[in-house]
Amino acid sequence: VPDGTRRNPINSLLSGLRRRRLAAAPDLPDADRARLEQSIEDLLAQPETNARRASAERLIDVYEALAPDGRRRLLELLAARFGPDDTAVDAAVARLRAANTARARVEAERTLRHAVTPRYAELVHVVSGLPQGVRFLIDVRAELLAVHDDDPALGLLLDELTGHLSTLFDVGLLELRQITWDSPASVLERLIETEAVHAIDGWGELQHRLVRDRCYGFFHPALPNDPIVFVEVALTRGLADDLASVLEREPSTNDEANTATFYSITSRLPGLAGVHLGNELIKHVVVELQRSDERLQTFATLSPMPRFRMWACARVEARELTPHEEDSLGHDGRSIVTLANTTWITDASVADRIRPGLLSLAARYLTTADERGRAFDPVANFHLSNGASVERLNWLANPERYGVEESLGLMVNYLYDKSRIAANAAAYLANGDIRASNKVRNLVKTPKRGAARSA
Amino acid sequence: VPDGTRRNPINSLLSGLRRRRLAAAPDLPDADRARLEQSIEDLLAQPETNARRASAERLIDVYEALAPDGRRRLLELLAARFGPDDTAVDAAVARLRAANTARARVEAERTLRHAVTPRYAELVHVVSGLPQGVRFLIDVRAELLAVHDDDPALGLLLDELTGHLSTLFDVGLLELRQITWDSPASVLERLIETEAVHAIDGWGELQHRLVRDRCYGFFHPALPNDPIVFVEVALTRGLADDLASVLEREPSTNDEANTATFYSITSRLPGLAGVHLGNELIKHVVVELQRSDERLQTFATLSPMPRFRMWACARVEARELTPHEEDSLGHDGRSIVTLANTTWITDASVADRIRPGLLSLAARYLTTADERGRAFDPVANFHLSNGASVERLNWLANPERYGVEESLGLMVNYLYDKSRIAANAAAYLANGDIRASNKVRNLVKTPKRGAARSA
Amino acid sequence: VPDGTRRNPINSLLSGLRRRRLAAAPDLPDADRARLEQSIEDLLAQPETNARRASAERLIDVYEALAPDGRRRLLELLAARFGPDDTAVDAAVARLRAANTARARVEAERTLRHAVTPRYAELVHVVSGLPQGVRFLIDVRAELLAVHDDDPALGLLLDELTGHLSTLFDVGLLELRQITWDSPASVLERLIETEAVHAIDGWGELQHRLVRDRCYGFFHPALPNDPIVFVEVALTRGLADDLASVLEREPSTNDEANTATFYSITSRLPGLAGVHLGNELIKHVVVELQRSDERLQTFATLSPMPRFRMWACARVEARELTPHEEDSLGHDGRSIVTLANTTWITDASVADRIRPGLLSLAARYLTTADERGRAFDPVANFHLSNGASVERLNWLANPERYGVEESLGLMVNYLYDKSRIAANAAAYLANGDIRASNKVRNLVKTPKRGAARSA
Amino acid sequence: VPDGTRRNPINSLLSGLRRRRLAAAPDLPDADRARLEQSIEDLLAQPETNARRASAERLIDVYEALAPDGRRRLLELLAARFGPDDTAVDAAVARLRAANTARARVEAERTLRHAVTPRYAELVHVVSGLPQGVRFLIDVRAELLAVHDDDPALGLLLDELTGHLSTLFDVGLLELRQITWDSPASVLERLIETEAVHAIDGWGELQHRLVRDRCYGFFHPALPNDPIVFVEVALTRGLADDLASVLEREPSTNDEANTATFYSITSRLPGLAGVHLGNELIKHVVVELQRSDERLQTFATLSPMPRFRMWACARVEARELTPHEEDSLGHDGRSIVTLANTTWITDASVADRIRPGLLSLAARYLTTADERGRAFDPVANFHLSNGASVERLNWLANPERYGVEESLGLMVNYLYDKSRIAANAAAYLANGDIRASNKVRNLVKTPKRGAARSA
Repeated sequence: VPDGTRRNPINSLLSGLRRRRLAAAPDLPDADRARLEQSIEDLLAQPETNARRASAERLIDVYEALAPDGRRRLLELLAARFGPDDTAVDAAVARLRAANTARARVEAERTLRHAVTPRYAELVHVVSGLPQGVRFLIDVRAELLAVHDDDPALGLLLDELTGHLSTLFDVGLLELRQITWDSPASVLERLIETEAVHAIDGWGELQHRLVRDRCYGFFHPALPNDPIVFVEVALTRGLADDLASVLEREPSTNDEANTATFYSITSRLPGLAGVHLGNELIKHVVVELQRSDERLQTFATLSPMPRFRMWACARVEARELTPHEEDSLGHDGRSIVTLANTTWITDASVADRIRPGLLSLAARYLTTADERGRAFDPVANFHLSNGASVERLNWLANPERYGVEESLGLMVNYLYDKSRIAANAAAYLANGDIRASNKVRNLVKTPKRGAARSA
Repeated sequence: VPDGTRRNPINSLLSGLRRRRLAAAPDLPDADRARLEQSIEDLLAQPETNARRASAERLIDVYEALAPDGRRRLLELLAARFGPDDTAVDAAVARLRAANTARARVEAERTLRHAVTPRYAELVHVVSGLPQGVRFLIDVRAELLAVHDDDPALGLLLDELTGHLSTLFDVGLLELRQITWDSPASVLERLIETEAVHAIDGWGELQHRLVRDRCYGFFHPALPNDPIVFVEVALTRGLADDLASVLEREPSTNDEANTATFYSITSRLPGLAGVHLGNELIKHVVVELQRSDERLQTFATLSPMPRFRMWACARVEARELTPHEEDSLGHDGRSIVTLANTTWITDASVADRIRPGLLSLAARYLTTADERGRAFDPVANFHLSNGASVERLNWLANPERYGVEESLGLMVNYLYDKSRIAANAAAYLANGDIRASNKVRNLVKTPKRGAARSA
Repeated sequence: VPDGTRRNPINSLLSGLRRRRLAAAPDLPDADRARLEQSIEDLLAQPETNARRASAERLIDVYEALAPDGRRRLLELLAARFGPDDTAVDAAVARLRAANTARARVEAERTLRHAVTPRYAELVHVVSGLPQGVRFLIDVRAELLAVHDDDPALGLLLDELTGHLSTLFDVGLLELRQITWDSPASVLERLIETEAVHAIDGWGELQHRLVRDRCYGFFHPALPNDPIVFVEVALTRGLADDLASVLEREPSTNDEANTATFYSITSRLPGLAGVHLGNELIKHVVVELQRSDERLQTFATLSPMPRFRMWACARVEARELTPHEEDSLGHDGRSIVTLANTTWITDASVADRIRPGLLSLAARYLTTADERGRAFDPVANFHLSNGASVERLNWLANPERYGVEESLGLMVNYLYDKSRIAANAAAYLANGDIRASNKVRNLVKTPKRGAARSA
Repeated sequence: VPDGTRRNPINSLLSGLRRRRLAAAPDLPDADRARLEQSIEDLLAQPETNARRASAERLIDVYEALAPDGRRRLLELLAARFGPDDTAVDAAVARLRAANTARARVEAERTLRHAVTPRYAELVHVVSGLPQGVRFLIDVRAELLAVHDDDPALGLLLDELTGHLSTLFDVGLLELRQITWDSPASVLERLIETEAVHAIDGWGELQHRLVRDRCYGFFHPALPNDPIVFVEVALTRGLADDLASVLEREPSTNDEANTATFYSITSRLPGLAGVHLGNELIKHVVVELQRSDERLQTFATLSPMPRFRMWACARVEARELTPHEEDSLGHDGRSIVTLANTTWITDASVADRIRPGLLSLAARYLTTADERGRAFDPVANFHLSNGASVERLNWLANPERYGVEESLGLMVNYLYDKSRIAANAAAYLANGDIRASNKVRNLVKTPKRGAARSA
């Protein structure tokens, strides 16, 4: 009977040392603040690693017992009192300015680099080595992301956490695992909790998805049984063209599959925002699927266009429609766009008429870069940065209320063609060039009524 | 049949992209150097992660094909051309000097911190994510440790690697594993290769040790099957008092064990020097042994004193012997110390006579701190820093030639008493106070002839 | 990404060969029956193992597609046509009767043993080696257990399966595993499905139980992720004395635990009935708990008495009450016993009065053996056979309707005292001696009113 | 730190109970014999499973402490005193003879089957459930295989073990694992110990083979880390045609591989002889290799012909040579065959001349069945029974002394063509039809001098 739970036998020692708590009032009044400052000084002066870890555990206990205001005050204390040593910075700056050889300049830069390293960097290190320490750092970073804007000292603290976590969550330390119905319940529970794109309605639906589709996640050794980011993939015959056909398929339909459709990708931990892992996950899963299932020829997404209606609304209001779009939409089509009316989706006569105009607008929305060379759509930006291309627009693909309100019922397939990923990404990131299929591009030029359902 | 070997399916992709090599002559002539500089610029400008990783793989191939001189030239290129951006540093310094509010100063420090970050930090990050990338960084750091002294730019590069590896090799990411005869042969092979203290003479002896003793190692997810640091522990009845009795015991003698004697600790990777893991390992193993074997009451080492004779020689030559030492050693005892004569070890009449003098010298050697507050002996310094105490000196404990030449045949037990570890370490590290048993201290004051074998 | 699902790569081969199905009508008409008989002959004559396995797979497919009547007809076909070879049996019998030396007799017995081995034994062997073959054999045995009674040929087939499965499910091949919230969802799903004693109301309650209590199961290599038998154990302070206090505890109450209370044991597979594993599981878990949690001093159950009221009813009706019982129960107490009235459980004045009588009856019920030397209660018989003793009766321990109807609200603690298990079991199994605590025995002799709640 | 060693926590209990040993003199004199007989009676009468297991452990201890003669006496005791119950057998026989309905006959057969089951069957069951019990049964079977011939009672005991182990070692319970340099040292040690075909000269050579070739084994849950049977496979370009080219290849030569050459298969445990696992292993490995390495097109062996010279010698002596063979061999060729002269192998002029004759003889040897319809060669019989065909004869393929003495330097490739395996095996096993390539068959008809090295 392996117990498997205890990676770190030092814990029992720690839990013994932890008994003496540093309790503080929830809003961290000044007296508590002063006492904590002294505790942190003591911790940084403590040479013995177990004792130092025990102090750090007590500090975490205090933090977790605080109310939001108290937490912010504690972070501000850390940022204000344990940042870079000003005297050392000034001395290093003076040395740098006095440097009159290349060698002296490098030496001064080296000194300066040490001097601008905040004192709390050491504390981050100690916490990182505690049993639940990495998770704690991620949580603190999530809180800092919400509050740092108006305080440069908190920004410097955020920089420290960002750098530390970027190193720890290096893709080389991540393990790609398939998630199945044989995975630990503690893993599956987290999928149900956090599936961001298409909510999972309980254990029964999860089991159905896992049996029918493929699910992969990245796992990190410091967060066992916690998929940091996970993706759901439907195996289909040809590109999937609407949401219902993906979410309501029966497992048996996999038999003739030749296409992997990524229909959901979820990052579980807000505190890892900006530590780009989602794009790595898609690329790894494409390779893994290719290796394990030789029938699969095509790798694509079925994606929402979350800001499309908002953008289209701005075009209408700014009278930036093409003649074709004007013609197709007419007055009620323009109202549909601007007023977020959702009833039209079930009225075939209206829908058919405005279809060419909306498809043209959608094609423009997806294939045009803004002045910074980026797509307007955040999901598009994500996939284009990864090297995908805009492959196909799907009409009436998401008739749910939110789908109509946000995307006017449209969904899009982004294509991951391994042989073009690097070139696509480079062209997009360097010049804002968006690669799209002719089929999509033609929607702008010559939209026709009555085309096939998948445009 | 799980193959277990492939954690990272992206490898096959990489190996495809890797084909186009960046060959260079072994000593990296100027033309190659210029070409590589351009390649690194391209790599840093490449936005797509797979392509960037492929470039980094090619760069590693070049490095590994170079001769030592070429490698150094490549590191110097990196250090010189891809360090901090001087213009940005100067601008940040100017901004710092102009800052006249606390807020402005913090903002300037934040800017300055970014500016002094070398450009190669990004390259370190990319390499770290490659399949064998972490191992490569460790190897490069080992080379830098050997050559950086006379070049501050290489020192700055070393700082970057040290910081990166310190974060990655955080104790929280290490997994403590017992190493047994059921462990992978690839792990055991590494024990045989690198056991530093008491060499393992082939697979037969290793099997004997693993069956009889306990062996534990720290493993890191980026270096599977490679024990970064490992320790060998004999389970004995009472403190072990000489080397032969530890190394030549039969397994059956474990039955009555109440003491764990750490007789060897080995750090496998020179490139992780200074990333202190050995002390963590001992502390974790003490906890683990306590948990798994309730018979064990005492945790101690059987350690060499590698610079004792050298130090004793200096005392003799400087005439810094106590009267008792003078008396006990006499002329031939002093010669034994200074001339590294080793024949006396088998001559009981000589050995008995000089014993009190040598034990007194050894007790002084171990219990006295130098002007920096550190023990003279490096092994003592390691264990005292961890919070151990000097428990017992063992006469004639290592009669091997090197044991007599280095330590005059003596070995020492350091005691790890969990209840005193933190206090001992603090006293030693803060004030140079060395905790030792009365039995050891008394050897200085009143050495007597004819005492028991274990002094 | 190891998928872990494929232990047996030959499967893909089999699934190819399986294509040609042996379809049959659901009730197996005579024509199909004749065809199947020929197929089985062919299978037994097929020398090549893969082809033979493929034939066996097809046969299983037929069986699983049949309706209950058809299945029985197929089993009867097997039993009738592929049993022992009558000619060979008769020849061996003749040889045995002619044997006039000890050696000749043994030789004849050896021949006879081969002769009485049914021909389908070979088929059982082939099926056992198929990927889901062992599970299929278990299912067939479950069906045979239901129908064999009136057909000795089916009984002989059942004997074959019983012998085969007894060998395969030898305790030496079972693996004891703790089941936690980190176990595969496919394992946990099976707990929810089959918990026999105290139903688990969905995933939320299961998680609560697994966090608070300990759950262990036996697993067999041929049935991965399927706990053949599992047990739930509450860690309590002292013996648990009623059901609600066990099922509604908070996890925090574990802190002071010194007792392991087994409150539920479930055998999942009816087809393994009589292959006694439950008793092994309890003994293994006692050892495992002792090893892993040194606080635990006492190992006991909290068990129902499922036939107590029925037995008590018979005593009342046969006027076999002791004077004390008569006195305590009175007329309404006797009605409560005979009429399965359940309202009294909430009427303290009634309950208090009839308590001594019911406890006396219960003590007699548990501590008396029937004419075969077995306890009347099946749960008691199970635990007494394992070597447990009757430790304590708990008044008002299960006030649920079924608890009152079956057990008059009482529950019992059976004690597993490792030092007495062997002696207890031997005395019980050999002579019907039931070991019980004095406290329980005294309930018969001198029942008193108003004793403490746990009698 | 999982220790992994303890699957069965009941062991500690057992080892406690085991203390009281049943010592016996090495040759088991009559007094000890009588005492053991009583112990076995007690064991079979003991109802409590732990106590029964402890008794069985003590019995095993006695057995293992005995000398060979004592062991045989103990087995004879078991066979003689704990066989079938004669009275019950006679009663069942009488019942069978009296049966005058089909139903009565089946009932009698069922009774008879129980009656002829020896009493030691229960003991085999108990031993099988002990920690090292299965291994013990295998060892006992190995001893019985050596001694049972002249004692039918031992033969009956052997039958019991054979049946029990055949059920336990069912292919469905075996796990196919690749064995690599990352496998446990305890596994690899067993390869070195037992490689039967081409000895492994220490750990260095083993590492070389595992890096270069593929090695697979079958593992059973009752024998962890013990490959019951294992196979070594070289990946080559085309069929391997001599031993040296297989054993001395460099790993790099795998790059262009399209053929898997099985060059060694070893069954580790003599006590499992006749429990056919080797053929299953080859078939499973073929499937696994096909799945994991799509370059592989051909699956074949490079096999010895261990009785070829002996057979050829008989042909020469019986003057059963074809005219071509007579012509090619001449007088000295015939002497080479009959006298096991080995010097000719290095004398090209002799070798070239006798080559056609020897190849013709070898082709006849391999492609002719004896009167029972089996190949003369045991290795051929093994592969032909599995469905392989004789593909190619290799001249001068094994010039080692034993290779010349046994096989006249020849080796043979057997081909495993998945699409023909079943048909080949059926034809061979049913009719003794041996499938061989035309190339081999033609060697008999028209042997030519000077053909290519691989004939």
